[in-house]
Amino acid sequence: MKRALGMGEIMIQMNPTEKGALRFQTLFERHVAGSEANTIIQMQRLGIECSFLTSVGSDEFGKVILSTLRSEGVNTEGVIEDEKNPTAVYFVQRSYPVPEKTMVFYYRKGSAASNYGPQYLKDSYFDGIDLFLVSGITPALSDSCRDAAIKAIDMAKKHGALVAFDTNIRINLLKTKENALKTLEPFIRKADILFTGAGDLSMLFDGDLEKSKESMKKMADVAKLIVFKKGSGGVEAFTGGKRYSMPSYKVPVIDELGAGDACDGAFLASYLSGKSIEESLKYANVAGAITVSLKGDIEPLPDWKAIETFLNVHEAGEKKLLR
Amino acid sequence: MKRALGMGEIMIQMNPTEKGALRFQTLFERHVAGSEANTIIQMQRLGIECSFLTSVGSDEFGKVILSTLRSEGVNTEGVIEDEKNPTAVYFVQRSYPVPEKTMVFYYRKGSAASNYGPQYLKDSYFDGIDLFLVSGITPALSDSCRDAAIKAIDMAKKHGALVAFDTNIRINLLKTKENALKTLEPFIRKADILFTGAGDLSMLFDGDLEKSKESMKKMADVAKLIVFKKGSGGVEAFTGGKRYSMPSYKVPVIDELGAGDACDGAFLASYLSGKSIEESLKYANVAGAITVSLKGDIEPLPDWKAIETFLNVHEAGEKKLLR
Amino acid sequence: MKRALGMGEIMIQMNPTEKGALRFQTLFERHVAGSEANTIIQMQRLGIECSFLTSVGSDEFGKVILSTLRSEGVNTEGVIEDEKNPTAVYFVQRSYPVPEKTMVFYYRKGSAASNYGPQYLKDSYFDGIDLFLVSGITPALSDSCRDAAIKAIDMAKKHGALVAFDTNIRINLLKTKENALKTLEPFIRKADILFTGAGDLSMLFDGDLEKSKESMKKMADVAKLIVFKKGSGGVEAFTGGKRYSMPSYKVPVIDELGAGDACDGAFLASYLSGKSIEESLKYANVAGAITVSLKGDIEPLPDWKAIETFLNVHEAGEKKLLR
Amino acid sequence: MKRALGMGEIMIQMNPTEKGALRFQTLFERHVAGSEANTIIQMQRLGIECSFLTSVGSDEFGKVILSTLRSEGVNTEGVIEDEKNPTAVYFVQRSYPVPEKTMVFYYRKGSAASNYGPQYLKDSYFDGIDLFLVSGITPALSDSCRDAAIKAIDMAKKHGALVAFDTNIRINLLKTKENALKTLEPFIRKADILFTGAGDLSMLFDGDLEKSKESMKKMADVAKLIVFKKGSGGVEAFTGGKRYSMPSYKVPVIDELGAGDACDGAFLASYLSGKSIEESLKYANVAGAITVSLKGDIEPLPDWKAIETFLNVHEAGEKKLLR
Amino acid sequence: MKRALGMGEIMIQMNPTEKGALRFQTLFERHVAGSEANTIIQMQRLGIECSFLTSVGSDEFGKVILSTLRSEGVNTEGVIEDEKNPTAVYFVQRSYPVPEKTMVFYYRKGSAASNYGPQYLKDSYFDGIDLFLVSGITPALSDSCRDAAIKAIDMAKKHGALVAFDTNIRINLLKTKENALKTLEPFIRKADILFTGAGDLSMLFDGDLEKSKESMKKMADVAKLIVFKKGSGGVEAFTGGKRYSMPSYKVPVIDELGAGDACDGAFLASYLSGKSIEESLKYANVAGAITVSLKGDIEPLPDWKAIETFLNVHEAGEKKLLR
Amino acid sequence: MKRALGMGEIMIQMNPTEKGALRFQTLFERHVAGSEANTIIQMQRLGIECSFLTSVGSDEFGKVILSTLRSEGVNTEGVIEDEKNPTAVYFVQRSYPVPEKTMVFYYRKGSAASNYGPQYLKDSYFDGIDLFLVSGITPALSDSCRDAAIKAIDMAKKHGALVAFDTNIRINLLKTKENALKTLEPFIRKADILFTGAGDLSMLFDGDLEKSKESMKKMADVAKLIVFKKGSGGVEAFTGGKRYSMPSYKVPVIDELGAGDACDGAFLASYLSGKSIEESLKYANVAGAITVSLKGDIEPLPDWKAIETFLNVHEAGEKKLLR
Repeated sequence: MKRALGMGEIMIQMNPTEKGALRFQTLFERHVAGSEANTIIQMQRLGIECSFLTSVGSDEFGKVILSTLRSEGVNTEGVIEDEKNPTAVYFVQRSYPVPEKTMVFYYRKGSAASNYGPQYLKDSYFDGIDLFLVSGITPALSDSCRDAAIKAIDMAKKHGALVAFDTNIRINLLKTKENALKTLEPFIRKADILFTGAGDLSMLFDGDLEKSKESMKKMADVAKLIVFKKGSGGVEAFTGGKRYSMPSYKVPVIDELGAGDACDGAFLASYLSGKSIEESLKYANVAGAITVSLKGDIEPLPDWKAIETFLNVHEAGEKKLLR
Repeated sequence: MKRALGMGEIMIQMNPTEKGALRFQTLFERHVAGSEANTIIQMQRLGIECSFLTSVGSDEFGKVILSTLRSEGVNTEGVIEDEKNPTAVYFVQRSYPVPEKTMVFYYRKGSAASNYGPQYLKDSYFDGIDLFLVSGITPALSDSCRDAAIKAIDMAKKHGALVAFDTNIRINLLKTKENALKTLEPFIRKADILFTGAGDLSMLFDGDLEKSKESMKKMADVAKLIVFKKGSGGVEAFTGGKRYSMPSYKVPVIDELGAGDACDGAFLASYLSGKSIEESLKYANVAGAITVSLKGDIEPLPDWKAIETFLNVHEAGEKKLLR
Repeated sequence: MKRALGMGEIMIQMNPTEKGALRFQTLFERHVAGSEANTIIQMQRLGIECSFLTSVGSDEFGKVILSTLRSEGVNTEGVIEDEKNPTAVYFVQRSYPVPEKTMVFYYRKGSAASNYGPQYLKDSYFDGIDLFLVSGITPALSDSCRDAAIKAIDMAKKHGALVAFDTNIRINLLKTKENALKTLEPFIRKADILFTGAGDLSMLFDGDLEKSKESMKKMADVAKLIVFKKGSGGVEAFTGGKRYSMPSYKVPVIDELGAGDACDGAFLASYLSGKSIEESLKYANVAGAITVSLKGDIEPLPDWKAIETFLNVHEAGEKKLLR
Repeated sequence: MKRALGMGEIMIQMNPTEKGALRFQTLFERHVAGSEANTIIQMQRLGIECSFLTSVGSDEFGKVILSTLRSEGVNTEGVIEDEKNPTAVYFVQRSYPVPEKTMVFYYRKGSAASNYGPQYLKDSYFDGIDLFLVSGITPALSDSCRDAAIKAIDMAKKHGALVAFDTNIRINLLKTKENALKTLEPFIRKADILFTGAGDLSMLFDGDLEKSKESMKKMADVAKLIVFKKGSGGVEAFTGGKRYSMPSYKVPVIDELGAGDACDGAFLASYLSGKSIEESLKYANVAGAITVSLKGDIEPLPDWKAIETFLNVHEAGEKKLLR
Repeated sequence: MKRALGMGEIMIQMNPTEKGALRFQTLFERHVAGSEANTIIQMQRLGIECSFLTSVGSDEFGKVILSTLRSEGVNTEGVIEDEKNPTAVYFVQRSYPVPEKTMVFYYRKGSAASNYGPQYLKDSYFDGIDLFLVSGITPALSDSCRDAAIKAIDMAKKHGALVAFDTNIRINLLKTKENALKTLEPFIRKADILFTGAGDLSMLFDGDLEKSKESMKKMADVAKLIVFKKGSGGVEAFTGGKRYSMPSYKVPVIDELGAGDACDGAFLASYLSGKSIEESLKYANVAGAITVSLKGDIEPLPDWKAIETFLNVHEAGEKKLLR
Repeated sequence: MKRALGMGEIMIQMNPTEKGALRFQTLFERHVAGSEANTIIQMQRLGIECSFLTSVGSDEFGKVILSTLRSEGVNTEGVIEDEKNPTAVYFVQRSYPVPEKTMVFYYRKGSAASNYGPQYLKDSYFDGIDLFLVSGITPALSDSCRDAAIKAIDMAKKHGALVAFDTNIRINLLKTKENALKTLEPFIRKADILFTGAGDLSMLFDGDLEKSKESMKKMADVAKLIVFKKGSGGVEAFTGGKRYSMPSYKVPVIDELGAGDACDGAFLASYLSGKSIEESLKYANVAGAITVSLKGDIEPLPDWKAIETFLNVHEAGEKKLLR
């Protein structure tokens, strides 16, 4: 069984029961989410043995996060319980002012996770792992988080693991193009597998999409594999000088949050398990499709049986009896 | 006023308030549903005087089912309250892993209804009825249910009533093609009016859809009328050597459960009331369209006024003032 | 800053949490709505300083309405608290029997607002206003409401304000074509800015849509500006012998109620603020699009920042990062 | 089996999910309630065969009321569907401003039921009944309701049935002591079984409670049986010159609405079934206790099995295993 | 009409729909609360004309707070919209681990309100006010808040207004006895009217309750009036060398949050309106009783009509008809 | 760290959001519960390292149960996923017909857990455990469950662990006194630590409570320690010829389910950790008090910090500041 290790902030997500401007929302559902954790849980559900590195507050919400990871079977030995700083929270505003688009309001400044640092990294966490995953959110959180991410990448490489990086730009955190570039470039340059998307490319590079892709490929000179996520336009991979492309599945969009993470996780789990690039992209698309069609970041993430059923019905159409 | 009698299991349906994998659902709505009962209630709402044959547990959920039938005006004299066996329950999983498709988890083994048997049938239940309705679910429940259905069909015929049968395959109950065929063939051979669909045909017969239809027509040698339900593809009827076809209405799909039953009920009520095949198919389509656009199996079933409003607006478009 | 004054009934709206026939609804959300108030609040959110004229019951629901207006910053000096008559209530039935269409059941007969009358109008309410707004609902409520509306229009004109009128036919109130015409004609003839739609035109005039538009233009002989709202077909304006047209934005329809009011409000606020007809129509379309995509009449009404974000994302597509 | 007939308005009750001032309530549950109907349903659950006389609107809420009566097995032949007037609605405010006390806001003026009148009474409704029940609310609704109630009492007497009357004063309807006395006296004078309580006595008569009781006994000169309901103080009956008293059961108070009706119904069902006064009072107390401990007027009404379980546990205490 | 001005942080309160450990709560209601704002809104509801000084984030939650104040009629001219810092949020944990007791988890560090400072104070805010109110929470938030509070007190005194101060200790903010004493002493020494309670006294002073009271009286040497709030033990006032005491009303405890603020507000509104100390204490008790019996801090605050109804029923008992 | 192993069925609990007769409940919360699992999770939260033996269905509800155990940190190596039989479900009816008492409706016949048997027991599960726990429910489920429980007890004893047994009679399963005695006697005779209560004693033995206790002590001849749980009457322990008694804490009763299990778990965790009998009884009482005051079986179970806070507030009263 393959093993993966992830790092990043996990937050409490407060998601209103209704769509619309946050100011009119009076009832909220509590979810758990964090980009890298979403990806890692997707991998765990697809049979990869995973563990995670982060800090949570030594508070009720920190317990929620630990429970969630544990309930999925993710190893939490590397999770620090911080007595001084709280678990981060964020509020979601869905479909306002743009229908089917989501905005977020963070309470993550000074959070436990943003106080995570290189001092917490132990060699043992990296023993036997096949892949280390982090995204552009982590270095954007704080200097100590950036240092921890860089150190972890180096430790992973020393242990012979692949490094996967998703640019995952958060404009609330990185603010300017200059800062985004300065913060993310060292990670793009170290990644073995790189994930990015149209929005991130247009934030990092000048010129049209095709030109931006070329700039990215040049910068990601170590990467063996680059995956461009194009939302409803599907997924595209570049490796060994070849381009693989897979259109997305048409599904109703309920909550776009987490779809990119699901995509990363399904791709990585497939790829680590020895599936072809084409297959890996197909499973990434399925995971993304299921995730956008449901609320929550973690709940929709499919296991293999779910992916198989999705594909069966997709192929058989109305002839398929499900009950 | 025309009269109809139905037979079949009625269950408590637990439907989560949110879509997604059942394991993450924490809040459930309680509904009442059962294929034949859905059809009978649709007929009752469209002016047919109906009664129903089944067993329910002598428990709180049995009371829910009796109340529901009574509240619709359906005669419940033939409903047995079983002191020993419970009312069946099932859980619904919506839009996972396939968006807009529903899966179900049954707690119906050994239920009161599956212990229903021929010993409960009284001649008086069949006095003056114009139609007896049962579906392929009932013989799939248990031997005693199958025997009761066969005996009821014979009693109905003796009383001069038409027999309507919907193949209504449940793979959870019938499991294999062989078992499905063995169980359903006697019913298909006795039906005066037969309802079936693409999924059922492909479960029962080899070959493509057109070949399967021909096989079905051959087997249903008594049937004066065969209705093929094609989901979003509309409805098709074969009678007197002629083929009638009616496209479905385009509506947003919220919950596909119960649409086929609504379709059967609206068709039968129209047909019994003397409407033409074309009209009956149109009303069947309207009932199906309204039912897929709402949650619940019974709640959406339209009365004549609702069908009329649907058709008015469908024809008038944005020029129609509704308020 | 421009100032506007509105008049009309504001009601408590009971909106079931689920779609479907009202008889099966057991949980209702309480909202506040009233056509003219919706429009006025839309204007207030877009920077117009607004006040409102109406009566509410001296009861808990009257307090809800006062709080709502005050919370938006609308001046409530002209709102009467009626000790004898209650605040009106209405119940909404969504998507039944017509998917995505809404029906309403009123409890407004003898309401506080329908007892509003000319005796409550004070000259001071009209000081410095740039626009007075009323719709066809108000004269349809009662004779005293009609008289108040006529008197207010005359007072507004005397104070040099524009008069905006939306035909806004409610068939539950006006019942017949004859009564609709008799009731609305005096208002159509006095309006400086007139809003109407396809349903209203076909209720008022014979012949096809184009002929009806011509009849309306002839009747509205004072109007400098006529706006035809065409639902999903966009908005059209006639002024100075010219025709301006703007297609609507494609968004998922959740609740069509209030979209026309939002449209009026955004158009008027833009127009009063000196924007061009084309821009005003565009903002009207955005407000309408956001409103149909969310439940509630008042909650979705956008401010300038929301309109701007909507347009940015509409133009940038998937390249736009929102988080 | 004994038979009873009731008359009175049945309304849609909108009950907020939370306690507190109505102006802050945003979520409401829909219930069905009406004093006499509550009593009749209590009797039906305790084995009396009941029917009911009233009007409902020919609207969705009228259908809710008909369904509710039918679902309980109450005969609805005598229920008129009024095409012109709506079903009444009322809103409940719980625990504000007085903890554990309930206030109500009615929308019942001009309702279908208040337009019920003597013209709807048919002789056949009274065939074979043992008891006719009405309360002081009905004559307080309208003149036509009062006339219908008087006529029904006379018809009941002619058919040899007992007449039960509960004074049931609603200050919102009767307003003054004089009006209350004038309206209720004719009914008090005709009642065979009379129910009343401390609040009603102090509204109708001067002097302290004991003196008021005497005044009531004098006025109710036909009554064979008078039941004084004393809330948490229990129930007291006067008959044949004797006084019977029964303390109430101590239970947590959740919603006091409907407890008096439950009490009446359980007493009457017991009494009609031939139980002793003492037993009848005990069952009345149990029904009242269960009803105050739960929300809703109709839902808590116990059947015989529920009453038995209540009494078993009450007697056995913690030694009773329920599971 | 008397006028009052308050200062303090107003927060978004996330209150789970169920009691129990926060980690298991998945559904939250959004409320608005802040000790001083609660008190001010209580005063406004009792006829005092109020205004408020604070900062809110220029975000959706800031808009909620502004709307809430405005909807109550509180003047918000002195409320700053802070572009850089967010509105504070806190989470409530009810009845765990101590039944009927509430714990809170704050996200208020670096909030907009804690960045409020003396630079925002304008002389005009103090024109014509009769009372300035602040509590021990404000100086505990930040140095700038403390400075603003001190400066506001001095400005209020210069304008001839009374200064009311509630010690209102938050251990999460003040942490140690020493810090509590250091932070609060300057305010205790300046207060004209001082509110405090048993918990605060035991935090500030050594010795038993009676000794602590004496220490407090000595420190509060300027105060004309000291009010000791004793929770279920009632309220006690010391003024002019006299002691006034009033027992509390027995009501079920649902949510103890905000009861002390309601008590302060009702006392101050009564006192400012010229009622006697005894009356003012009685109304303070009623406001406290109503507030503990309902969820939310602001929603339960009574107006005069609510207080009157509470007292009527309290005196009349079961003889009082409310409907 | 001490280690414990439990065995028993874990079920999905459907708990209506409202109290009252199940037939009127339309909204249900999903919880997880099972007597022995409740006790084990209570022990895990109090620092005992626990593992569990059972079967769950290989279905969505089985996944819920596995997630729940894992989220608490309980080792699930010994949990079988049964491909053929479903996870059991039960429905809860709260406060009807007896206020504050709960009834249950089981769907557990033929469940995965009732098909658990001795063949699944591995020696390794018992390595290093200090205590094995099972209750009277397990042998009542099926012969294979009884055999598994007996075998596990013997294996536990062989590994030097204590055996704890709670009589935990379920009348729905055991039905008669004779069957209860026959089923439970072997377990009572093998227990080292025995838990029982008044209801169970009166079911098993004749005579009054004191006589029953003596009969139980005689039968439990191996037991070093017997704990009598007396509900609101507190807890009593007999050991070494001595009697220890501890009154219960007065708290509001919300949901009595699970309180006994919490009590067992807190007692066992305390006792295993070396606390005195008195202390262990006190913590058992706290755990029971917290559990009855909240809904759900597992959610309320306190950790040490919660117990400490409960006791602090209990001792300090209103002088304790919690915020």
